[in-house]
Amino acid sequence: MPTDTGQITMLRINEDRLLTDLRELAQIGATADGGVDRQALTANDIAAREWYRRKIAAAGLDYAMDGAGNQSAILLSDPPSAKRILAGSHLDSVPNGGRYDGSLGVLVAFEALRTLKDAGITPPVTLEAVNFTDEESAIMGLMGSKAVVGQLTMADFERSRVDVDELIRRFSAAGISRESMLAATRDDVLAWVELHIEQGTRLEDSDVDIGVVDAIVGIRSIHVTFRGEAAHAGAKPMALRRDALWGAATFALRAREHVMRHYSPGVCNVGKISAKPGAFNIVPAEVYCALEFRHGSEPEMDQMQADLIGMLEACAAEFRLSVTYDATPPVISASMSETVMDAIERAADKLELSHRRMLSFAGHDTQNVATIAPAAMYFVPSVKGISHNPKELTSDADCVNGANLMLHTLLGLCEGQS
Amino acid sequence: MPTDTGQITMLRINEDRLLTDLRELAQIGATADGGVDRQALTANDIAAREWYRRKIAAAGLDYAMDGAGNQSAILLSDPPSAKRILAGSHLDSVPNGGRYDGSLGVLVAFEALRTLKDAGITPPVTLEAVNFTDEESAIMGLMGSKAVVGQLTMADFERSRVDVDELIRRFSAAGISRESMLAATRDDVLAWVELHIEQGTRLEDSDVDIGVVDAIVGIRSIHVTFRGEAAHAGAKPMALRRDALWGAATFALRAREHVMRHYSPGVCNVGKISAKPGAFNIVPAEVYCALEFRHGSEPEMDQMQADLIGMLEACAAEFRLSVTYDATPPVISASMSETVMDAIERAADKLELSHRRMLSFAGHDTQNVATIAPAAMYFVPSVKGISHNPKELTSDADCVNGANLMLHTLLGLCEGQS
Repeated sequence: MPTDTGQITMLRINEDRLLTDLRELAQIGATADGGVDRQALTANDIAAREWYRRKIAAAGLDYAMDGAGNQSAILLSDPPSAKRILAGSHLDSVPNGGRYDGSLGVLVAFEALRTLKDAGITPPVTLEAVNFTDEESAIMGLMGSKAVVGQLTMADFERSRVDVDELIRRFSAAGISRESMLAATRDDVLAWVELHIEQGTRLEDSDVDIGVVDAIVGIRSIHVTFRGEAAHAGAKPMALRRDALWGAATFALRAREHVMRHYSPGVCNVGKISAKPGAFNIVPAEVYCALEFRHGSEPEMDQMQADLIGMLEACAAEFRLSVTYDATPPVISASMSETVMDAIERAADKLELSHRRMLSFAGHDTQNVATIAPAAMYFVPSVKGISHNPKELTSDADCVNGANLMLHTLLGLCEGQS
Repeated sequence: MPTDTGQITMLRINEDRLLTDLRELAQIGATADGGVDRQALTANDIAAREWYRRKIAAAGLDYAMDGAGNQSAILLSDPPSAKRILAGSHLDSVPNGGRYDGSLGVLVAFEALRTLKDAGITPPVTLEAVNFTDEESAIMGLMGSKAVVGQLTMADFERSRVDVDELIRRFSAAGISRESMLAATRDDVLAWVELHIEQGTRLEDSDVDIGVVDAIVGIRSIHVTFRGEAAHAGAKPMALRRDALWGAATFALRAREHVMRHYSPGVCNVGKISAKPGAFNIVPAEVYCALEFRHGSEPEMDQMQADLIGMLEACAAEFRLSVTYDATPPVISASMSETVMDAIERAADKLELSHRRMLSFAGHDTQNVATIAPAAMYFVPSVKGISHNPKELTSDADCVNGANLMLHTLLGLCEGQS
């Protein structure tokens, strides 16, 4: 790095270039209503990947793709360091998604590297701006980062959302295979940082520029069934009914109360409910509901689960019902690295961007990378919190703030190494 | 009637004949698990109707069928009276129903007439034992009685549960037509009495022989939709959610509390519920539920409806939701005739059968007949309240009690006329 720290402090990304790239990328897989549809390794995603490869070449940065199809723009240190600092996100989208989710994270990392290169700055540690494959679950979700950290197994491909022929077709289109994916593990990651849009309104509501994520919540999902007794909705006196809905409704409300009072900002949701037999004139014999809860700490999550399951049983007993539940595989919560959060916060202070710590309630590649290296991420505001939707929007100013913050966070992380 | 009132007081129906007929009838449309399937005017129902016609002939009673397909065994007075006292129920069943629902009501009325005939008693008023067509809604429900009281219209056929070709086919199999049905009104009904199984456990629970129905409840059904806002079940803080399920769950529980406290033995039921979009990780934007409530008095029903709708709106407001509802056509409650109830109770006392008054929560042909003549009905116990089910059961003793009660109720009603 140049010795002129004043010059480095004043360094800023190229706003026009960043915003132009963002608009250009949004044309790939553009939908009629202003969104994008670039499901992982479909033709639209392949086109976006090719676009990124060409952009990297045009920027004079090195390009690499690993066996998982993860693409990197690389700015080498001199001599090239054994370990590297990585930043990035993903270019794939949900069906009919927005322009910012993932894309902005890749582009700000790429823009940071371009800015350094243009300024003639050779970093003391090699930097990469990464596009991770299949973050958005068109295939399995967080796939590229899972491969990198060695958590991907052959069995995961069998649980893919696409059938094996389609899987092989898509992998082949990207120049990869199941075998190459399983061999894509890395041990050269010194640190990781990701920018993502918030997909919520906490920043907007509190008028704060940057959300420094201190943990990505774990997610536990439980299928719950309350069982009582079907009965004639007229002839059976109410006091004698074993109405499964009474148990389920009581549970939904008590869980809400309890989680809000004792586990905030942890959350719970009953997102699905149905009653059997399901008729005006029959007392519900069986009510199914889908319960999900999230928290940033695993020990708290364990307690929360114990509380909620105790509550399920109490609600069932209260209305003379039985209750059964079975859990789907959990998402383990991930604590972020204090070192990387600190680098983000110091850079934000330097740039006079206001910031606060917050949980990420959605899953991100960062949670995988965090299992092998110090990692953290930060949010920029989402207008009205809208996401996974063509109306998804982050203001130009916030995109630029996010990119400058990426630049200075990477510089700060490099400094920590020099 | 003979002047020997002692002989009349001691008169009892033929138990073996009644129970043998009941078993014989249960073979028509018998299902593998001991129930019957005789949906209105299907081949099985037609066979049961033919069986009843032959039984009437064998008993030496007169037989008649009206334009609605309602069949009557007739015991004429001498001279034949201008008006008649009717009793009966229906021989059709729900799909895979039980042996007693409806059938027992027809057979006890028929048995009462046979008993009188065998005893050489000519009643002062002509008596009929009626099998009403399509009580159980295979076509539209309470159809035969609706025709008799002049409430059937051509438009009702368009709302039938079977298409018009099938409707005509079934009518034709029974020797009737839409036109004949509309012409089946009667103005010769002096009184009506119906025995039915309770289809509940109030008699069994209180160890009472006979339930004298004082009103058949009205039924109002409302489709309710609460609307909030879909949101990410992680990122959206719980305090900011507009979760439609919270409103619906609160409503279901408050309605339960309120109706049990203020409208018992009136009842309410939320029998159906569903959430949209319906996913673990999305806060429900919309929850639909089916609300039904029943009461024996129309003014109380109006108040109950006002209370429940006020409650819907309060629950919506509490969680910042909107709510809409639309009502399906109501079933109007029917008060029973004091004269007929009195005849039933005096006969029960004479037979030393314990009795209490109660609401009927299910609809019955009696509610139609009540619009043109003094009418009432009574229940005999259902074992465990099971009904519309092959396990439906009323003990032989209760069947016999019910038949003797029918005999003496008819005699009492005749006495009132002589």
